[in-house]
Formats: sequence, C-alpha cells, structure tokens
Amino acid sequence: MAQLLSSSCSVTLSSRNKPYLKSFDHGSASFSCKNSTSPFRRLFLQENKPRKSSVVVHATSVSTSREAPVQTSSGDPFKPKRVIVIGGDGYCGWATALHLSNKGYEVAIVDSLVRRLFDHQLGLDSLTPISSIQNRIQRWKSLTGKSIELYIGDICDFEFLSETIQSYEPDAVVHFGEQRSAPYSMIDRSRAVFTQQNNVIGTLNVLFAIKEFREQCHLVKLGTMGEYGTPNIDIEEGFITVTHNGRTDTLPYPKQASSFYHLSKVHDSHNIAFTCKAWGIRATDLNQGVVYGVTTDETAMHEELVNRFDYDGVFGTALNRFCVQAAVGHPLTVYGKGGQTRGYLDIRDTVQCVELAIANPANAGEFRVFNQFTEQFSVNQLASLITNAGEKLGLDVKSISVPNPRVEAEEHYYNAKHTKLVELGLKPHLLSDSLLDSLLNFAVQYKDRVDTKQIMPSVSWRKVGVKTKTVTN
Amino acid sequence: MAQLLSSSCSVTLSSRNKPYLKSFDHGSASFSCKNSTSPFRRLFLQENKPRKSSVVVHATSVSTSREAPVQTSSGDPFKPKRVIVIGGDGYCGWATALHLSNKGYEVAIVDSLVRRLFDHQLGLDSLTPISSIQNRIQRWKSLTGKSIELYIGDICDFEFLSETIQSYEPDAVVHFGEQRSAPYSMIDRSRAVFTQQNNVIGTLNVLFAIKEFREQCHLVKLGTMGEYGTPNIDIEEGFITVTHNGRTDTLPYPKQASSFYHLSKVHDSHNIAFTCKAWGIRATDLNQGVVYGVTTDETAMHEELVNRFDYDGVFGTALNRFCVQAAVGHPLTVYGKGGQTRGYLDIRDTVQCVELAIANPANAGEFRVFNQFTEQFSVNQLASLITNAGEKLGLDVKSISVPNPRVEAEEHYYNAKHTKLVELGLKPHLLSDSLLDSLLNFAVQYKDRVDTKQIMPSVSWRKVGVKTKTVTN
Repeated sequence: MAQLLSSSCSVTLSSRNKPYLKSFDHGSASFSCKNSTSPFRRLFLQENKPRKSSVVVHATSVSTSREAPVQTSSGDPFKPKRVIVIGGDGYCGWATALHLSNKGYEVAIVDSLVRRLFDHQLGLDSLTPISSIQNRIQRWKSLTGKSIELYIGDICDFEFLSETIQSYEPDAVVHFGEQRSAPYSMIDRSRAVFTQQNNVIGTLNVLFAIKEFREQCHLVKLGTMGEYGTPNIDIEEGFITVTHNGRTDTLPYPKQASSFYHLSKVHDSHNIAFTCKAWGIRATDLNQGVVYGVTTDETAMHEELVNRFDYDGVFGTALNRFCVQAAVGHPLTVYGKGGQTRGYLDIRDTVQCVELAIANPANAGEFRVFNQFTEQFSVNQLASLITNAGEKLGLDVKSISVPNPRVEAEEHYYNAKHTKLVELGLKPHLLSDSLLDSLLNFAVQYKDRVDTKQIMPSVSWRKVGVKTKTVTN
Repeated sequence: MAQLLSSSCSVTLSSRNKPYLKSFDHGSASFSCKNSTSPFRRLFLQENKPRKSSVVVHATSVSTSREAPVQTSSGDPFKPKRVIVIGGDGYCGWATALHLSNKGYEVAIVDSLVRRLFDHQLGLDSLTPISSIQNRIQRWKSLTGKSIELYIGDICDFEFLSETIQSYEPDAVVHFGEQRSAPYSMIDRSRAVFTQQNNVIGTLNVLFAIKEFREQCHLVKLGTMGEYGTPNIDIEEGFITVTHNGRTDTLPYPKQASSFYHLSKVHDSHNIAFTCKAWGIRATDLNQGVVYGVTTDETAMHEELVNRFDYDGVFGTALNRFCVQAAVGHPLTVYGKGGQTRGYLDIRDTVQCVELAIANPANAGEFRVFNQFTEQFSVNQLASLITNAGEKLGLDVKSISVPNPRVEAEEHYYNAKHTKLVELGLKPHLLSDSLLDSLLNFAVQYKDRVDTKQIMPSVSWRKVGVKTKTVTN
C-alpha cells in the first residue's frame, strides 16, 4: 500500500506515435513509476524517509488514430477529440469516461486511486462490487474495441501531471479529481486540511499545466451547487447582476459554502476565474447537484463495468443512501427537520452534461458556470417518494429524524436556475416511479453486502477536532 | 539556512507560571527546536531526507503579571489582555506588536521568519537596516520594561501552533502570518502554490487551534481590499444587501481577486466565515488597503526598533516605492495608464485599527468585516502628490509609464466604504504634504542603500510559468 501510494506513474507507450501523425496500432504500455512528493502521500504515510522505488507495470493499452485537433486560434471551430478525465476511476468519473469513449472521444483516465484507499481506511465499501481500474479498461476494450489510456498518479505532483498533459495532448480536461465528500472533510483537522490542499493545489496544477503546455485545452471542472449555500434569493448560474446605489454590475454569485469540501470548490472557482481573465484559459465550471443512480448505458454492459454505489454516512448521497436503507428495512435517516432542499440529477445526466460542455467549449478567456441538476427536492420529499415506491415493491419503509450532524438551515427558500445546459441540449432523466423502482430493486439485489454499521451519520460538523480519527463508527 | 528553515521552535519558559496565576519575574526562555514538516520547508529545501535536529537557543524573556481573562460566557464583558501576533516580525506585524505592547497588552510574537528568507532568496533587502527579532525584542524590553514573548515556528506545522496556543492562552490572535506579496505569488508555479498552501492551511490551523484550545479567543485576521477587485458598484464592508426577483438577502460581497495572493485571502475569508457559523468562532476580517509609511511612535524610539521598508518590485507597496524612486532620481514607475485606484492607509493607522478590533471583539459566532483604509487614490494621483512634495525638497521627480506587469483595469469606478473602524474610534492620519516630506526625507536618508536593479517590475501576471525562478531580475 505504501508503495502504491508513493508512486506516480506516467505512461510511456513503446510504440507511440508523435503528436498529430495518423493511426498507429495495438501497442503495449509500460508504466514508469517513481516516487511522488504529493501532499496526500505525506498525509497518509507519515514516513520521514521517502523510499526510492522504481516499479514497472505492464498493461494492455491501445491507441486509436489521432487527428490533428483544430485550434480556434486558426479561426476554425474548435473540435475537441482527445479528453482526459481526472478522477476517472470514481463514481461520476468512471461513468463519464465510458460515456465519452462510447461517443467517439479518445479518452485517458488520470487517477491516483485514492478514493479506493479512503474505503480501506474508513472500513467502507461500495454496495456494488467494483473491478480494478485495469480490469475495467480491459473489459471495455474487449466489449467495444475502444481504448482508454490510463495514467496512475496524483495531480498534486506537478511533474507527473505535466508529463501527462504533454504526453496525451488533450483538447479537454474533465476534472473530477478531488476529494468530494463533505463529511470526509469534516472528520478531523487532517482530513479538512487534506481536502483543501488536495483540491486547491491539484486544480492550480491543472491550470498551470494547461497554460504552459496546452493553452487551447478546455477545462471542464466539477464544482458543486453547495458553493451557493441557501440564500434567500434565487440562485443564478455563476453570476448575478446587481444594482446598488444607482449603479449596476454583473458579479460572481456570492458563495456561502458549508463544509471544508464545499469551500474547496469555492476556492477553485475563484482561482479558475482569475486564470481565465489573466491567461485566457477557457473553462466551464459545472456546479453539480446531488447525483443519484448507478447505471448508465455503458456501465450496464458488463458486471466488470459496474459503477460504485456508496450508501454510507461519509460518501453516500441522500437518495442512494435512502434506497439502501429501504432495501434492508432500516428507517430512512432524515437529518433534522428534513426541509433541506437541494438540486438533484441522475448520473445519466451527469455524463450527458459533461459531454455537452465538451462539445460546446468555452471561449478563450471565458469562465462559464452551469448549474448541473435537473430537479430540486427537500429531504422530506425524497423520503416520501421512496416510501411510496417501496410500498409498491412490498417494502415497509419508515423514516426517522436523526440529529442533524451538519450545520445547515433545515427550512429555507431554495430556487436555483438551471437552464444553460438545457439550452445546450440536455434531455433530463427525471426522477420517476420507475427509476425509483429500479434503484430500489438494485439495492435489494445487493442487500447482503450492506454493512448496517455504516448507515448512521458518523461525522459531526460541530465536533470535528484536531485529533486524527482512524475509524468513523 | 536549511537547519533554520527546518526548525519549528516552541518556547518553554524555565520559570513559567501556570495560567491565571499572578506575577512572576525575569526567567530565561529555552527554545526547544525540532524538525518541522511544514510545506514551506519542503518547498525551499527540496531535500528528500529530513534531518533530525535538536537545537537549543537561549534568549532573555520576561513575562509580566497575568490576570485571568474574563470570558463572555460568564456574562461579563470580554476584556482581551493577552495577544498573539502571528507574523510579528513583518512590516505590519512588528509595528503592531510594539503598539499593542505599548498600550498595555501582553504580547507574544509568532513568526517563522520566512519573510527574511524571501529577501535572501530573491536578492532583496529592506531600505532600512533591520535588527534580528531577538535584538528587537531585547531592545524593546530595555527601553520600556515590557516583554514580548517569542515563538519561532511555522503555523502550517500544527503541532507547533497548538503547543503555542495552549502555552500562551491568548485572548486575541492577530494573524499577519501569510505570504503577503501579489507579485511574489505570480513569480512561478511553485510560489503560487506555496502562497495558497501556506496562507490557506496556516489559517485553517489557526481556526482549529482556537476551536480546540481557546474557543473564546478572538481572531483578528488581515485580509485585503484586493479581495473585492474593482466592481462597477460601491464596495461595502464584507456584505451587500441584494434585492433580486422580488426577494432580499444580505450576502457576502462578491469577490474578484486578481493574483494568487489576493485569492488566498478570499479563500481565508470563506473558510473563516464558515467556522464562525459552524463553530461559533469570533472573527474580524480586516480588509486592509495599501499601507505606506514606516515610522510609528514605538519604532521611532530606537534604531534597533526601526521597521522594514520595501521598495522593490516584489514587496514594495506603491507609495513607499515611489518615495524611494524620487529620492534616488529614478522616474516614478506608473504601471500602464495609472488610473488604478485603491484604498491607502498610514501604518500608524494599521496599528490603531488592529488595536480597535481587539478592544472591541466580535461576538461569538460573528464574522465581522472592516475595510481598513482611510483614503483612496489612483496611481497617477500618488505620482502627482509625490512630484509636488519632491519639488519642495528640491527633488526633480519625473514619472514614466511602464508596461503593466499585472492584469487589472487601468481605468475604472472605485468607491469603497470604510466607516466601521471610524465608528469604533479610528482617528486617521491622512496623507499630507508634511507626511510626504518626512517619507521622502526618510528615503533620501537611506538612499545609499538603494539597489536600483530592484526598482523595475520583474514579475509578469501573464508570463508566470511552471519553471522555478531563482532570481527575479
């Protein structure tokens, strides 16, 4: 484990063509691994003497033909073709990588696999058994003939990241590669610090790498609706026009995030906006709502492609968590009054939205913000929907109010705009009885894998302290 | 130097009393030093094997009588008495530490001294010769009988910080302890990353230390007017009331910072606001303008107390820099059109404002923002004022426009509110002919120490790259 964590791997394809030359065939990838000096290694290993190591891993990797990307600087339309998905082994990232590959993009996954380590460290596991990233990619290749390149490493390690960007020459970078759990960021001081350091510095590195090595590349960055908090006015998409003392300006929408994780995304948004202005970076910030569901067209093709499904109190999102609770006969755990209202979307819409953002890139210097969700619900509404859907399946679903581990308004105004992605062509999959049935059935199918100890919230926003916690329950 | 940087020192007073017991006398402080695992050490040393070291430094340290601070939780008014000044060896920090000590507060300075290292690394130096922090504190003691405790270490090293907070038990922490130069943060990628990591993580650590060990302690945090950018509407103090689609809310004022340094302060502000809400931290964010001047009542008492005075393109602030240019016969370097307008204040008002914030603490859970400046000027107005003042002293002052190394509006609306500190009792020292005379005379006095190579801007917002720069000119 120590070796794995201390390694960043840059792929060197033994039969790799030079950029912009056409078509080469099945080559074998050699992974040249070296010590990483990234922050997360230091956090988790806490060892004083980094060991020098050199590891060579062989994996099958196939590159398809490559056309010279058309740059907007030539006046032609920008036709993105080559996409890097940072965090491509995660919940949203894996589904997105497959979807883009299926849609004809050339895709590379960049991932440190640290999300899998979090599960080990906290004693958690996906409801669904998930394959290794290597097997996932091989299975995808054998089913579709499509290759996904793999770069294992940490984007906080700039040497690794810069080699990856220079090697792959992406037209778009989709950046899911952050610690993405609010409760995780509130476990203890070291996790709070890790979350902000990892997310903010990783994104800074991506911005510098694009500026230096791939200036026309479009950054598609995953933000969160949680950046806005719950203001008493309508939430706009990134910007708001304000008239004040007789003058008017359009300004960044004020941010009121409520965890160190959500705050890290606020920090990212500010950093990215600056680099768009100062350097001409083209960026789309996707302020995503709470994602539910597990199956996409691509992950449904084979059990080795199945996505992770988190139901625990740290990584589980509300609706997914409720489905598992209903399946195992555990009361739905409504935090506090349950009036907390948020934007939600089906994971099939996550992948669709990212594709739309890539296919319609931001202009050079443009910082574009889309609110990426399709419907809004309160927690009580979700509980009610699941109770009704459960009844149809013969499940007796109860709800209980548990003390809210978070600090948040439990009754509030919430009206967030989300039209820009619809204008680009998003066809939403709305939450319906049939989807809830299938989600519940899915949860029932895997219910023997449920660890009921993981269901209750284990992380308190108020009690977070400086002592490192090794287990959460 | 490596040893110095890799050390964090926690003071152990050999004849130290327990908290809240009265009066003890001249003791000698032993500094117990150990390796720090802080990010800045890694950045600058870039060595793979941290060396274990144990260094003992002896310095004279005197503690005066200590009264039990009155906590608001008891219902009595909060009477801050013991103050930690993080960054107390810096330009604003040193002047503030002396001022607070002079006003009867018990003061401890926490500083890693990294600001002095920056000068070594970039080949810069203060116009004024400055003494070591140890000699400064000894001189202050010999002149006034007042002691200032000294904790040498990096607040990114949480072990050091937590020991310091537990040992000193402050009623207020004044936090100047950040990398504070916009150009420094734009030198190269590693300085950009260092600035955000150092500033954001240091402040997170301060927040956790206060929450865990000193929950009633008031955080007085130095922000910057640069967090707001240059919006086309009036700038309010931290918050703005917005009416939108028929609904109204008071929200954090939108932030548009324009360097990685300024952005780090934006990140801090968001993090602090969250902890006030979630944990009940009491905090004042002082969004300070550009500080000018060098002398305060206290630093004027002896040449060993003299403050630093930066005139270089990295750390020099506009008006100070212009005074030095005028003194040595260098044309005033106006960046671009010179219409850039900002808030300014005399360093004598910096120390006054901090004292006012401490004496009138924020309530528990309150995140309070004061705009800390007294007048606003455009760069052209400053140049004109100095030209006129120079004439009276027989100096022939010219101005030249140099290509703007920054990305910023050069002609814009600017009207920033700054009434809250005045309401608390601030009596501003306005920029006057007599002050300019004395500043210019001061610059003339030290003009033989001017390194003219440092005058021109050396850091470009647009050209910042990933290669580490070792010199700036």
